Amino acid sequence: MRALIINCTLKPAPQPSNTEALARVVAEAMEKDGVTVEWVRAVDHDIKPGVENDMGPGDAWPAIREKVLNSEILVIATPTWVGKPSSVAQRIIERMDALISETDDNGVPVAYNRVAGVVNTGNEDGAHHVIAEVTSALADIGYTIPGQAWTYWHLGPGPGPDYLDDQKGHDFAAKTGRAMAQNLVTVARALATTPLQAPPS
Amino acid sequence: MRALIINCTLKPAPQPSNTEALARVVAEAMEKDGVTVEWVRAVDHDIKPGVENDMGPGDAWPAIREKVLNSEILVIATPTWVGKPSSVAQRIIERMDALISETDDNGVPVAYNRVAGVVNTGNEDGAHHVIAEVTSALADIGYTIPGQAWTYWHLGPGPGPDYLDDQKGHDFAAKTGRAMAQNLVTVARALATTPLQAPPS
Amino acid sequence: MRALIINCTLKPAPQPSNTEALARVVAEAMEKDGVTVEWVRAVDHDIKPGVENDMGPGDAWPAIREKVLNSEILVIATPTWVGKPSSVAQRIIERMDALISETDDNGVPVAYNRVAGVVNTGNEDGAHHVIAEVTSALADIGYTIPGQAWTYWHLGPGPGPDYLDDQKGHDFAAKTGRAMAQNLVTVARALATTPLQAPPS
Amino acid sequence: MRALIINCTLKPAPQPSNTEALARVVAEAMEKDGVTVEWVRAVDHDIKPGVENDMGPGDAWPAIREKVLNSEILVIATPTWVGKPSSVAQRIIERMDALISETDDNGVPVAYNRVAGVVNTGNEDGAHHVIAEVTSALADIGYTIPGQAWTYWHLGPGPGPDYLDDQKGHDFAAKTGRAMAQNLVTVARALATTPLQAPPS
Repeated sequence: MRALIINCTLKPAPQPSNTEALARVVAEAMEKDGVTVEWVRAVDHDIKPGVENDMGPGDAWPAIREKVLNSEILVIATPTWVGKPSSVAQRIIERMDALISETDDNGVPVAYNRVAGVVNTGNEDGAHHVIAEVTSALADIGYTIPGQAWTYWHLGPGPGPDYLDDQKGHDFAAKTGRAMAQNLVTVARALATTPLQAPPS
Repeated sequence: MRALIINCTLKPAPQPSNTEALARVVAEAMEKDGVTVEWVRAVDHDIKPGVENDMGPGDAWPAIREKVLNSEILVIATPTWVGKPSSVAQRIIERMDALISETDDNGVPVAYNRVAGVVNTGNEDGAHHVIAEVTSALADIGYTIPGQAWTYWHLGPGPGPDYLDDQKGHDFAAKTGRAMAQNLVTVARALATTPLQAPPS
Repeated sequence: MRALIINCTLKPAPQPSNTEALARVVAEAMEKDGVTVEWVRAVDHDIKPGVENDMGPGDAWPAIREKVLNSEILVIATPTWVGKPSSVAQRIIERMDALISETDDNGVPVAYNRVAGVVNTGNEDGAHHVIAEVTSALADIGYTIPGQAWTYWHLGPGPGPDYLDDQKGHDFAAKTGRAMAQNLVTVARALATTPLQAPPS
Repeated sequence: MRALIINCTLKPAPQPSNTEALARVVAEAMEKDGVTVEWVRAVDHDIKPGVENDMGPGDAWPAIREKVLNSEILVIATPTWVGKPSSVAQRIIERMDALISETDDNGVPVAYNRVAGVVNTGNEDGAHHVIAEVTSALADIGYTIPGQAWTYWHLGPGPGPDYLDDQKGHDFAAKTGRAMAQNLVTVARALATTPLQAPPS
């Protein structure tokens, strides 16, 4: 079983990413459960705007799309900016839009029988909305969203420190992240045993 | 396998409910697949405000809560009002909030291994947001949201007719509803075979 | 100038309301600026479901609607439940839906030239989404939303204490509340001097 | 009085933009009312990811930021993708985030005394949510959102034609757009006469 974590931070490598730091908790829990985890830091790649599978010369999406299709589990890790998922996360969602109408040879949409979850960090507030925005988009595309398949960290109210700068709340975020990992893996296995079929006509 | 459809229309029986009319498509598809479907029209019951399992004398929630816990599948059917799920749908979500911290004897949250979806009708616009609001709340509580577990109907842009008053778009809404039914039932079966476990400590 | 604060707590009087406690900061700042402030605790009134101005015998809305129309400033004070505005807040919004199509003798929608803001308290997260949900509905209905016309309080991540049980963050919430009050009053005065007109045909 | 329309389509010039086509109705109505309207098609500029005013060599934001600060009126024109504002719109919002903490010499936040609205086109559904997401972010930053300061177009339910490909609903979208223009201009004038002040300490 394979998982892909797409880190949607606005900061290119090698800058430290708070979102990546929290996502690592989820990755380690999945790896302990036998899952192979791959990472993409999206901002380091030239993912062109558009909603086709390939937006032409220099587009980094086709290679990332292949990783998406090779993974039963997708984790979108995103910071909160002005209360919303990052522009990088929305770019990923837009490029995944083309999956809606793709099927395998049996007519099963390619996103079916895959599961998705969200890791979110921010300075202040907005995690549940960010999680709702990302998971609702991925469920539209065909991903199954396991119960409690998210973790997050911020302190409130008002602007505050980053995840890497304050240990407060890390226990909650880590414990929630380990439950998230378990739920993602279990539902991915459940769908492997009892898969979704092609939609009735 | 049992499904509960909670119709969150603002209109008490016996007024015709557009939302119920579309939800019937989903109910029939689940019944054909061997599922027992029960209905609650929430506005006809005195569901008290609050977030406890029982808000005291006259509270209709404890009886509905029992139906929720007897059902592997939950469908929230709600109209759109001013772009949001109805106040009746939000009342249901608030009363389900107490489920977050309840577990069975093995420590498994009671909402785990259940699936949920949304049926939505409106005059104009807003279905995907309504679906996102309801499913994100239910996923918080522990429900698994299968890929494409929703259907909706409205015409746009601007104010327009009700579902029962215009045949346009019924084909899309019905076909989507049948796929929703299939996906709900399949993921419920997948979880019955491969259930979610208690969260790791 | 008059302001109406509708407290959308789920708890009937005389239970203490965290949301009311924070809204008092906003009320006092408006009163110091010469505004007459009136309060409604919505859950104490039998506001019937529906979207007409009067839903029949026993409906408490017509009396509250009169207070809404007597006030240039409206403050919706609501707790966060499962990441959303309370069912009581959504009930208020639904009942205000009928204002969309009402105009004065000059064809000016009755909600024009009024301003609105939000006070929000919660245990955990979600304030900006709650504010977005309420203000976007009121802007649909015709209210003007001044810049930074909200305040909120919660601590995160994960479940935590109520506003009345922890002094942390009260300074931020109070300072933000005083700015909110000033912005509401200023934009209400700006609209009184330079009012919105009837929409062009 | 000056207005800036930022078109957040995913399609670079000279491809036709549905969103621009609808935004033109709003621009023309503002111009008739004496407003100077400037356009930016954001996807044609290399707006770097980040939340600082200048993200370094090649960053197109500083020049666009100057246009934002020269305009009392801002219109974000965005398509809907997977139910959300485009990644280009979110990029603009992220870059405007730095305005939150900037003030003029009197301590007045630079976004105060400016107004904003939204033009939205899509294939299917989601306009009110897109409007809520964009306006709530801009109100956080300090913009005032006039009552009914938006217009939109889509047909539903399900995937459908683009704005430029179907005349249905254009009347509603254009009439709503003219009202939007009038409300933006009127509230901008109201704030010029009766401006917001520095927040109380």
